[in-house]
Amino acid sequence: MTRGLHPETALEPRLRGMQPSITLAIQERSREREALGLSIARLGLGQSPFPVPTSVVDALRAAAPEKDYLPVRGLPELCEAVAGYHRRRHAVPRTGGDVLIAPGSKELMFLLQVAFAGELLLPTPTWVSYAPQARIAGRGVRMLPTDVANDYRLAPATLDAACRDEPDLPRILVLNYPSNPTGVSYRVDHLAELAEVARRYGIVVLSDEIYGELDFRGEHVSIVRFLEDATILSGGLSKWCGAGGWRLGTFSFPSRLRWLLDAMAALASETYSATSAPIQYAAVRAFRGGGDIEDYLDRSRAVLAGLVERTRGALVSAGADVPQPDGAFYLFPGFMGCAEALARRGITDDCTLAERLLTETGVATLPGSSFGIDAAALRLRLALVDFDGARALAAAGAGQVDGAFVERLCGPTVQAVDALAQWVQRS
Amino acid sequence: MTRGLHPETALEPRLRGMQPSITLAIQERSREREALGLSIARLGLGQSPFPVPTSVVDALRAAAPEKDYLPVRGLPELCEAVAGYHRRRHAVPRTGGDVLIAPGSKELMFLLQVAFAGELLLPTPTWVSYAPQARIAGRGVRMLPTDVANDYRLAPATLDAACRDEPDLPRILVLNYPSNPTGVSYRVDHLAELAEVARRYGIVVLSDEIYGELDFRGEHVSIVRFLEDATILSGGLSKWCGAGGWRLGTFSFPSRLRWLLDAMAALASETYSATSAPIQYAAVRAFRGGGDIEDYLDRSRAVLAGLVERTRGALVSAGADVPQPDGAFYLFPGFMGCAEALARRGITDDCTLAERLLTETGVATLPGSSFGIDAAALRLRLALVDFDGARALAAAGAGQVDGAFVERLCGPTVQAVDALAQWVQRS
Repeated sequence: MTRGLHPETALEPRLRGMQPSITLAIQERSREREALGLSIARLGLGQSPFPVPTSVVDALRAAAPEKDYLPVRGLPELCEAVAGYHRRRHAVPRTGGDVLIAPGSKELMFLLQVAFAGELLLPTPTWVSYAPQARIAGRGVRMLPTDVANDYRLAPATLDAACRDEPDLPRILVLNYPSNPTGVSYRVDHLAELAEVARRYGIVVLSDEIYGELDFRGEHVSIVRFLEDATILSGGLSKWCGAGGWRLGTFSFPSRLRWLLDAMAALASETYSATSAPIQYAAVRAFRGGGDIEDYLDRSRAVLAGLVERTRGALVSAGADVPQPDGAFYLFPGFMGCAEALARRGITDDCTLAERLLTETGVATLPGSSFGIDAAALRLRLALVDFDGARALAAAGAGQVDGAFVERLCGPTVQAVDALAQWVQRS
Repeated sequence: MTRGLHPETALEPRLRGMQPSITLAIQERSREREALGLSIARLGLGQSPFPVPTSVVDALRAAAPEKDYLPVRGLPELCEAVAGYHRRRHAVPRTGGDVLIAPGSKELMFLLQVAFAGELLLPTPTWVSYAPQARIAGRGVRMLPTDVANDYRLAPATLDAACRDEPDLPRILVLNYPSNPTGVSYRVDHLAELAEVARRYGIVVLSDEIYGELDFRGEHVSIVRFLEDATILSGGLSKWCGAGGWRLGTFSFPSRLRWLLDAMAALASETYSATSAPIQYAAVRAFRGGGDIEDYLDRSRAVLAGLVERTRGALVSAGADVPQPDGAFYLFPGFMGCAEALARRGITDDCTLAERLLTETGVATLPGSSFGIDAAALRLRLALVDFDGARALAAAGAGQVDGAFVERLCGPTVQAVDALAQWVQRS
C-alpha cells in the first residue's frame, strides 16, 4: 500500500519521460563544465548579454521594501505603463485593464494553454517551450512547415491550408518575431496577409514579440496593426531590458478577448498569485521608457547587429547556410554543405553535432531539432551572448560598431563562432 | 468561423465560472472601497503585518543587479540555506538537492497537483486554494471532516476511514499547521498518530508549515519528525518574513520522492523557469537566520500572541465560539450563539454575514464557507493584520505585550474586532 510513493503509479502519465527545458538544461550543463575547470563558450542559453539599465536597477533598489501582495493582474501603474508602451509603439488602443503581468511570459503562455481549449499552431522552427506546455496542458499541437528559402517565415497559404479542413476549430497561432531561433522577422505586407488568414478563421494570434525592441533598425512592426481584435501581445523584460533572471512577462489582450484575460487571471490567482512586488515597481521605470532607455536600446541594437554581421560572415564563409537575422541575438546555421565531411567524423544528426562541438571545442549550442527541425538538417542555434555586455555598451556609445569593434569587445563569442567555423571544416 | 474568439467554444470547460481566489479578491475589493473614500479595516487578506527584516531588505538592494536566469530548482546557496534551516529546525537530513524554489509555495502546490496523479485529502476547514488547484489540474479532492470540539484538528481515525476502502490509491494529505483559517496547530503525539496512518497507506504528506515560525511559543514541531520519507515540507518567506509580495516559496522532498521533485522541476522549467534572482539572493539571508532574525521572530510572536489573546477575548465575551490559536495571525469565530438575533436581521449564512459586516461597519473578513465549512455555521476568518507592524515590532522590544500594548499599537485591528463583537450583538 505505498503506490503513492512510486512514479510508476503516482506520476501523471502525460509527464513520463519529460526532461527540463533544453535551453535551461544547457545552461546547467555549462555551469557543471565550468565547475570542472573546463573552458566553455556559452552560446546555449538565450540570455541577454547586457546589464539591466542603471535607472531600472536603481528603481529595484528603491522598491526593495515593497512587501505587499499586489493585485493578481499586476501593479496598476505597471499595467498602465505596459499599455502606454503598446500605444506608443503600435498605436493600438490598449489600456491598463487589458494587461496581465506574470513572473515571465513563459508562465503566461502556459496559463493561456490551460485556459484556451483549442489547437496550437506552431510554425517551425519554433521556440522550445510552446509544445511541451501544450503537452502538460493536454492540448493538441499542429506544426506548420516553413520554407528555408524564405528564411523560415510562415507562408499565408500554409496557414490557410492548415485551417481549411476544420475551419471552425478554436486555434491559437504563435507568431514569434524576431524569431528565436532564427532572428528573422516579418515584413509589413507579410504580416497583413497572415492577419487576413487569421481573420478568415477566427484564429487568436499570440504575438510573441519578446525580441521586438531588438530589431536592429529599431523598426519592429507588430501584426496587431492588422488584427487588433484577435492579437495577444506578449512581451517582458527578459530580452530588451537584460533582466531575464528577474522574471517579468506581460500579455496585453484585445477587449474582445477579455474573457480569456479573466480566465487567466483566475488561474494566476490560484498559482503564482501575483508577480514579485519590487520587480514590478522597477518594471514601471523600464516600460515608461525615456532618453536613457532609448540610448541603451540604440547601443544594444548596434552591438548585436555588428556581432551578427561578423559571425554570420564567418559561418557563411565556412559553407554554412544562415538565415539573415533582422533582430535579436541568434544565428541558426545549417551545415548540410559540410555533411559529407561531418559524416566521415560520425556526425549525421544535430544532437551529435552539438555534443561533439561541446566536448571537442567547449562551444555550447543547441541542436536545431530542439526547435522542431529535422535532425538531419544539421542546424544549430547559436546565442551570441557570451561577452561583457556592459563594456560593449559603454564602447558602443563612442564609435561605430564594425568587425574590429566586435572582435575587441565581444571576443569570446566571435572566437567561439570562428572556432565552430573552423571545426566544421576540419576533415 | 470565429469560435476561437468566444468563451462558449474556446474556454476550457473546467474553468467555467471560476473566480479569482477569494483571499486576493477581498484585498482588491478593500482597495476599491478605500478608493471611494470609505473606511476599511483589512481583516480579509492574510498578509503579514510586519515589514521584511532590515538585513533581508538590504540583501535585496545589494542583489538588485543580479540579472542572470538562475537554475530551475533554485539558487544553489538558497537551496542549501533552506535545507540547513530544515536540518536546524527539524533535525531531518535534507540537503540542497532536495529543495525546489518557486515564486510562492502556492505555485509549488499547483505543480504538485499537476504532477501527482492521485487524490487530494483536505481536512476542513482548509485554505482556499488547494481545491481550486485540484479542479484546474483535474484531480479528485476528498474533504475530511474534523471536529470543532477538537478545534478542527484532523482525527487519525478519520484519515484511516478515508483510506480504508481503497487502500492502494495514491494520495496526498495536506496538513497545514498552524492552520489557516484557525491558527490551531497539532500536539506532538497527535502528529505521531497521523504519521502512523499515513505510513499504513503510503500517503504523501504535504506539510504546509508556512506559519510554523509564527507558533507563539516558538515551539513548532513538524510531522516530518515521524514521517521523514513521505513528507514534503512546504514553506516560504510570505508569513514569518513579512515578504508575501516578494513571492518566494520552498518545497523540500525526502529522497524517496526525488522522482516527484524531478517531475516538478521539469514542469517549472516550462512554466516559471526560475524564481526571480534578486529575490532569491535576498532569501538566502532570511533562511540562514541569525540573531537579528531570531529577535524579529521573538517580537513578531509576542505581538501576535498578545493580539490574539485580546481580540479572542472580545469575541468570546460577545458569545462567539473561537478555536484557540497556537500561532499565526488568524481567528475563526463562529456566531451560532447569536444566530437568532442575526436571523432577525436577515443573516442566516456566512456570506451575508461577511457582506453585511463589510457594508455596515467597514470590517473586511472572509466567510467560513470559503474554507469548506457549512455556510450556516456562521463563521468568519479574521486576519489580525491591520496595524503598523514596524511600530509594533519596535515597541515589542521594550516591554511586555499585554492588552494595553495591543490596544495602543495594533489599534485598527483591535477596534475592528471590538466593532465586530458589538455589531453581532446588536439586536
